[in-house]
Amino acid sequence: MRAAVTRIGGVVVEEVEEPVPGPGQVLVRTLACGICGSDLHAAADMRRFAGLVAQAGGLGGMDPERGVVFGHEFCAEVVEHGPGTERTFAAGTRVCSMPVIVGPAGPEGIGYSNRYPGGLAERMVLQEALLLPVPEALTAEVAALTEPLAVGEHAVQLARLTGQEACVVIGCGPIGLAVVAALKARGHGPVIAADFSAPRRRLAELLGADEVVDPAIASPYGRWEELGVPTRQADRAALEVLGGPVRDAVIFEAVGVPGILRTIIREAPPRTRVVVVGVCMDPDQIEPFFAVTKELEVRFSFGYRREEFAATLERLGRRELPVEALVTGVVGLDGVAEAFAALGGAAQGKVLVRP
Amino acid sequence: MRAAVTRIGGVVVEEVEEPVPGPGQVLVRTLACGICGSDLHAAADMRRFAGLVAQAGGLGGMDPERGVVFGHEFCAEVVEHGPGTERTFAAGTRVCSMPVIVGPAGPEGIGYSNRYPGGLAERMVLQEALLLPVPEALTAEVAALTEPLAVGEHAVQLARLTGQEACVVIGCGPIGLAVVAALKARGHGPVIAADFSAPRRRLAELLGADEVVDPAIASPYGRWEELGVPTRQADRAALEVLGGPVRDAVIFEAVGVPGILRTIIREAPPRTRVVVVGVCMDPDQIEPFFAVTKELEVRFSFGYRREEFAATLERLGRRELPVEALVTGVVGLDGVAEAFAALGGAAQGKVLVRP
Repeated sequence: MRAAVTRIGGVVVEEVEEPVPGPGQVLVRTLACGICGSDLHAAADMRRFAGLVAQAGGLGGMDPERGVVFGHEFCAEVVEHGPGTERTFAAGTRVCSMPVIVGPAGPEGIGYSNRYPGGLAERMVLQEALLLPVPEALTAEVAALTEPLAVGEHAVQLARLTGQEACVVIGCGPIGLAVVAALKARGHGPVIAADFSAPRRRLAELLGADEVVDPAIASPYGRWEELGVPTRQADRAALEVLGGPVRDAVIFEAVGVPGILRTIIREAPPRTRVVVVGVCMDPDQIEPFFAVTKELEVRFSFGYRREEFAATLERLGRRELPVEALVTGVVGLDGVAEAFAALGGAAQGKVLVRP
Repeated sequence: MRAAVTRIGGVVVEEVEEPVPGPGQVLVRTLACGICGSDLHAAADMRRFAGLVAQAGGLGGMDPERGVVFGHEFCAEVVEHGPGTERTFAAGTRVCSMPVIVGPAGPEGIGYSNRYPGGLAERMVLQEALLLPVPEALTAEVAALTEPLAVGEHAVQLARLTGQEACVVIGCGPIGLAVVAALKARGHGPVIAADFSAPRRRLAELLGADEVVDPAIASPYGRWEELGVPTRQADRAALEVLGGPVRDAVIFEAVGVPGILRTIIREAPPRTRVVVVGVCMDPDQIEPFFAVTKELEVRFSFGYRREEFAATLERLGRRELPVEALVTGVVGLDGVAEAFAALGGAAQGKVLVRP
């Protein structure tokens, strides 16, 4: 079959071996697959990426010296059932799945394994037990957004919101937008979303952000008092003694480059909960003194739980949010290399691949 | 009155103005007062310390160009009541108090304010509303430990323990020991405490640590599997799917020097809760990639709440823990300068001052 294969030298489209479903696995035809920021990170330095994942004790299966077919945000169609399957979904059924599969060497990440090609290929194998049927109302493109939107869902879950918080989302790439969507789907807010890119700020507004900020013009951290969040510990303590409601701030870090966390720690009001959902691959410097004296809580968020993935697909099926707007480009396999290059620099939404 | 005054040049004992209780305030005679690591930090660079506190929006009132009488861990005896007091406690009553006072310029920290001398002086003024009577059974020395022990109490509260966690305490100075004490007072554990100093490790054992580790000989992070904490995300996921109890790790950082948090982030198993209770004054480098992919939660802990302070004094009154052992030295005002110098380097427990 044809696949976009990422090697240390770059991305090339070539014929690769046809995947064969093992026990409990299903062969599917890829309908749409998103390109993720992590794919770009991995492609930029395959050896470093694989090394970091191994050091972190993550899912194995990626030998950077061999080609990898990326793609873990997908919608696909059932083609054929492997041995020992229950044939829960007939051939032709459109499905989504968490990008995990249990092979002979244990669980591996679909799209980050040499053994299990991801969605940037004509076909792939999935774990039958993880398949979720795609609601009729959804296009394959929107269904493929389940995965990145579930990342936002999970980050919002980790924030343990009571509904009283002022929420600030730093960065409106696909993940920051997924956080905005998850917040507004639950009626949280005010939600202030910040990004240097005007198109991305427009997307944030479309998904319900109550306010958008261009950090080149105004600080996304400059409005606490106005939002009712005390910025001095003494003021906060006084409010608590008076027994009144004290509004907390929650800041979502969805940029993932060095320096952002340091700025957030500097600018956050006391007792802010910070959810880090951007994946920063480089060492970063922070100033613990400010984090300590302000009693910040920093929760690092990664992926999602199985039930959050399912809930996200279900919510998409109710068509409550205009998430179609997130898709700012669709390419074929032959356009993958160019899309990787373009996404590295530009401020796009989500680019989908239709293999 | 006589006081140990810290100036930019160092600590000197001199005659200072007698403190006069304002409205709602009480004059007390200091019976015992601990020297805190923060005092040493502040003395080492008064300008920097005051600048950092101001930047963090902390309690004001400290002009580093003028002398400051440190001391915020104290037990004292009521001498005289100021105007507008309720005279809740008669003269001669032994009291403890959170080191906060509300003056004409708002709340200030006792012992970190030019206006309100701390316990390294013969007398001080306290806020009547914050006074807590010291149980008969307690010596003034032990009562003076309420403040640092409350810091441990608060850190343990922030960890949101369920009772199933494996707890590792990095650093057995007074704050690390306070964490050990708070953990064991609640029956949590196993508690593994790590410190390079043998006397400190002995103190940790005395306070109930189930195991002590000398990091020069063994890694405090090397026993997860043995303790039932999965170190690979895949193993953890498998255990969760099987529905069995999955033991979490909680790591308390009680050292407060650069590099420790980075090591903890490297060595922590997935989903570890890290409570940072050491106060690191310098910028520090971390590797967010590992924190993200392991979904760590980092809670920065500072001070305590009013009810935790009161609960700590109450628990001390029940004499459940041999906390006397924490006191490794007692000096007069004339010994403060030397104690500051000694504590900077050596691995002591708590040094108390009897002014």
